[in-house]
Amino acid sequence: MTRNDCAALDAADPLAPLRARFTLPEGVIYLDGNSLGVLPAATPARVAAAIQQEWGEGLIRSWNSAGWIDLPQRVGDKIARLVGAAPGELVVADSTSVNLYKVLSAALAIARADAPARRVVLSDAENFPTDLYIAQSLCAQHGLTLELTTADALEARLARGQDVAVLLWTQVNYRSGRMLDMARTTALAHAAGAVTIWDLAHSAGAVPVDLNGAQADFAIGCGYKYLNGGPGAPAFVWAHARHTERFWQPLSGWMGHAAPFRFDTAYQPAPGIARYLCGTPSALAMTALEVGVDTLLAAEPLGGMAALRAKSLRLSRLFIDQVRERCAAHALPLASPEDDTQRGSQVSLACNEGGYAVMAALIARGVIGDFRAGQGTDQAPDLLRFGFTPLYTRFVDVFDAVTALATVLDSGEWREARFNQRAAVT
Amino acid sequence: MTRNDCAALDAADPLAPLRARFTLPEGVIYLDGNSLGVLPAATPARVAAAIQQEWGEGLIRSWNSAGWIDLPQRVGDKIARLVGAAPGELVVADSTSVNLYKVLSAALAIARADAPARRVVLSDAENFPTDLYIAQSLCAQHGLTLELTTADALEARLARGQDVAVLLWTQVNYRSGRMLDMARTTALAHAAGAVTIWDLAHSAGAVPVDLNGAQADFAIGCGYKYLNGGPGAPAFVWAHARHTERFWQPLSGWMGHAAPFRFDTAYQPAPGIARYLCGTPSALAMTALEVGVDTLLAAEPLGGMAALRAKSLRLSRLFIDQVRERCAAHALPLASPEDDTQRGSQVSLACNEGGYAVMAALIARGVIGDFRAGQGTDQAPDLLRFGFTPLYTRFVDVFDAVTALATVLDSGEWREARFNQRAAVT
Repeated sequence: MTRNDCAALDAADPLAPLRARFTLPEGVIYLDGNSLGVLPAATPARVAAAIQQEWGEGLIRSWNSAGWIDLPQRVGDKIARLVGAAPGELVVADSTSVNLYKVLSAALAIARADAPARRVVLSDAENFPTDLYIAQSLCAQHGLTLELTTADALEARLARGQDVAVLLWTQVNYRSGRMLDMARTTALAHAAGAVTIWDLAHSAGAVPVDLNGAQADFAIGCGYKYLNGGPGAPAFVWAHARHTERFWQPLSGWMGHAAPFRFDTAYQPAPGIARYLCGTPSALAMTALEVGVDTLLAAEPLGGMAALRAKSLRLSRLFIDQVRERCAAHALPLASPEDDTQRGSQVSLACNEGGYAVMAALIARGVIGDFRAGQGTDQAPDLLRFGFTPLYTRFVDVFDAVTALATVLDSGEWREARFNQRAAVT
Repeated sequence: MTRNDCAALDAADPLAPLRARFTLPEGVIYLDGNSLGVLPAATPARVAAAIQQEWGEGLIRSWNSAGWIDLPQRVGDKIARLVGAAPGELVVADSTSVNLYKVLSAALAIARADAPARRVVLSDAENFPTDLYIAQSLCAQHGLTLELTTADALEARLARGQDVAVLLWTQVNYRSGRMLDMARTTALAHAAGAVTIWDLAHSAGAVPVDLNGAQADFAIGCGYKYLNGGPGAPAFVWAHARHTERFWQPLSGWMGHAAPFRFDTAYQPAPGIARYLCGTPSALAMTALEVGVDTLLAAEPLGGMAALRAKSLRLSRLFIDQVRERCAAHALPLASPEDDTQRGSQVSLACNEGGYAVMAALIARGVIGDFRAGQGTDQAPDLLRFGFTPLYTRFVDVFDAVTALATVLDSGEWREARFNQRAAVT
C-alpha cells in the first residue's frame, strides 16, 4: 500500500465530499475527533446569526420567535436518528456527568422498586472516570456498592448477577476503543434482572447504535466528540419509553416541569423525556451543537451511519496495518481489539517507553492524537490514541500519520519533545 | 419632569458612555435585562475568535493554549468582584438549578452534621419556581420539610427557627423586585442556627452584594440576566471558605476532581470551590459570559456597583413617579417596595385587568418588559415587570416607556394586542 494507493481510495470514496463541510487547519492531520470534533464550516455563521440577530435583535423574544425554547427537543430528535431512538425520546441537556446523575438516579429508583435486594452498581474498571465518580456519589447516598469489573469478565459476572441493580457501561471504551455489543450485553443484563445505562460518549456519531433495537434502558452521550458540537457542547439523555414516566429524576429544574411558564409552586414532571431537562440551557451552545449534528446527518443520503462505520473501519484497519508494516522496529502493540466488530472508531497503541513524548513529537509534526497514561496501579499501559472520524479523515491522512509516527520513532526526535497533558481533554 | 429634563439627566450622567458597549436594536426600549441581558458590542467578535481560532485552528490544544480549562475559575474570579467574594471562592458552572442542587445538598449535609434535629428547609412562597422544585427534590430525598413563608413573615419565623436547617432565599424577588437585607437576614438565620443559601439571580450585577461581609454560607446566581452572558449562559456558585471543603457535593463529575487529568478511578474532591464543578463546561458559552462580565466591570473606574446602584434607583424612581403622574387614570398600583432600600433593579406594576395584553401592546410599540401572571391560587396579582439596567438604560428611555404605557392604556389599543407568554423566560 503506497500513498498513491491511499489517494486512489480517497478519489473513489463516496463520503469524501463531506470533508468540505469542515474547517480543518492547514498542515494538521487531526486524529482526535474522539476528544473534540472539528469545526463544521457552517458553525461560525450560524452562531454569529444566533448572537447578532437572535440575541442582539430579538432579545428575550427569541426564546419563542427563534425557537430557543425548542432546541433541547429539536436537536435531541436529530441525535435520536443517529442512535436508534424515536422522535421525542431524547433531549439535549447539561453535561454527560449531570445526565448520568439523572439516569442513574432513575435507574436505581426502578431497581429499588422492582428488586430492592439488589445492592450492586456494576461498571467498567476502565470506564471514563467521571462516570465512576457520579456512580460513587449515588452509591454512597443509597448505601449501594459500586463494583468494577472488566469487559472480559462481564458476561460471567452477569451470569451470577442476581445482586446487580444497574449495569453502567460506556459502550466504546475511551482508552482502548473496545466496543461492546449493546444488544447482547443488554439481553444478558436483563436476564440477570439488571437495568442498563449506556454511555454513548464514544459511540454516538461514531458507530451505528440502536437503542430501541437493543431494548436498552437509559443512555447518555456527549456533544463535543463525534457530534462536532464544539468544546464542552451540551450532552444528551435518553430513556426507554417504558421507563420515562415511572420516576422523576432528582434534578427537577423548571425546564423539566410539565408547564414551566405557569410558574407553579409545586413540581410536576413533564410528560416524556422533557422531565430530564433541568435549568435554562445555553442557546448558543445548543445552536453550535445543532450545526454539528446537521453536518453528520448530511451523510444520510450517502448511507448514513452504516457507510460512515464502514469507512471508519477501513481507516482504522489501514492504520493498524501500516503501523505494523512501517513501525515494525518499535514496540507498539495494538491496545485496541483486533476484531473490527469489537472496536469503535479509534485505535490505541501501547507505548510504555516515552509515549507522552512520542505524542508530543507527533503533534509538533502536525499529527494530533492524544496520550493516555496507564490508569491507576494496574497493568494498563500508556497509550497513544488515534481517532478516525470518517467525516473528514482521508486515507492519505492515515498514511501520512504513520509516516510521521515512523519518523518520530526512527529519528529519536521524540526524546526532545514536550507535550502538555492538560490539553488532552477526552 | 419633561423629556428634556430626562435628556439633561442623561447628558450629565457619568455612566452614560457605558451604553456604547452594548448593541441595542433600533426602535427598542429594552426593560427586560432582568430576564435576558443585552448583547455586549464586544461579544460577536470574541465568540467568533473562540470558534474560528481557538476551536477551528487550535482544536483540542485550546483547552490549554486558549485557557478554556481555566474559564470556570477565571470568569468566576471576575464575578466574585461583583458580589463581595474573594478570588478563588466562586466558579462558573452548569445552570442555577444544578448549582442549587449542589449547594443545598452541601448545606443539608452541614446542617445534618451540626444539628440533626432540624428538619425544615425554609424558603419564599414567591421564590422563583425552579428553586422550590430543586428544594422539593432534596427534601423528599432526605425526609425533610420544605416550608414556604413570605418576606413579611420571615423574621418572625426565624425568631422561632430552632427547627430550620437551611434558609433558601432569592435576595431580589423575581416578581416584585423586593430585596432582602442580606447581612441582617443572614444574621437572623445564624442566630436561629440555620445555614443560608442566597440565590443572586436578580442581584448579581444589579445591586451591590457583599457575600463575605454578610457572612453568608452559600450562593448561586445566573449569568444571563444582569451579567449579560447570553441566552442560557452558565451560572455560578459560591461557598463561604468555612464550608467549602467540609463536604463533597453530590454532582461529583471529573472537573471537580482534585486531579481530573490523572484519570483516577476514585473520586477525590478538588481543594476549594473547584469541587463544585461537575462535567466539561461549554467553552463558547463561558467565553460569551466572560465578555458580559467584563462589560459590567468596565464600570469599576466609574464607581462600580455603587454607582450603578445609584443610577438604577434614580431610573426606577423616575419610572414610578412618571407612571403615577401620567397613568393616573389607570389602576396600576406599585407591586414593588416603595422604599428604595428594599427594591432591586426592577419595578413591577399590578395590572389585573388585561395585563398580558397591555404588555403585548407595549412590546408592539418597542417597549420590552414582561408579564408575570398571578402565581398559584393566592391573591398575587398579575404583574407588568420592568427592569432598569443602568449600564444601557437612559432617563429618556424611562420617559418614553411611560409615554408608551400611557398611550397603550389611554387609547385602549391593548385590547387588540397579543403576546406570546412563552417568550418571557425569566
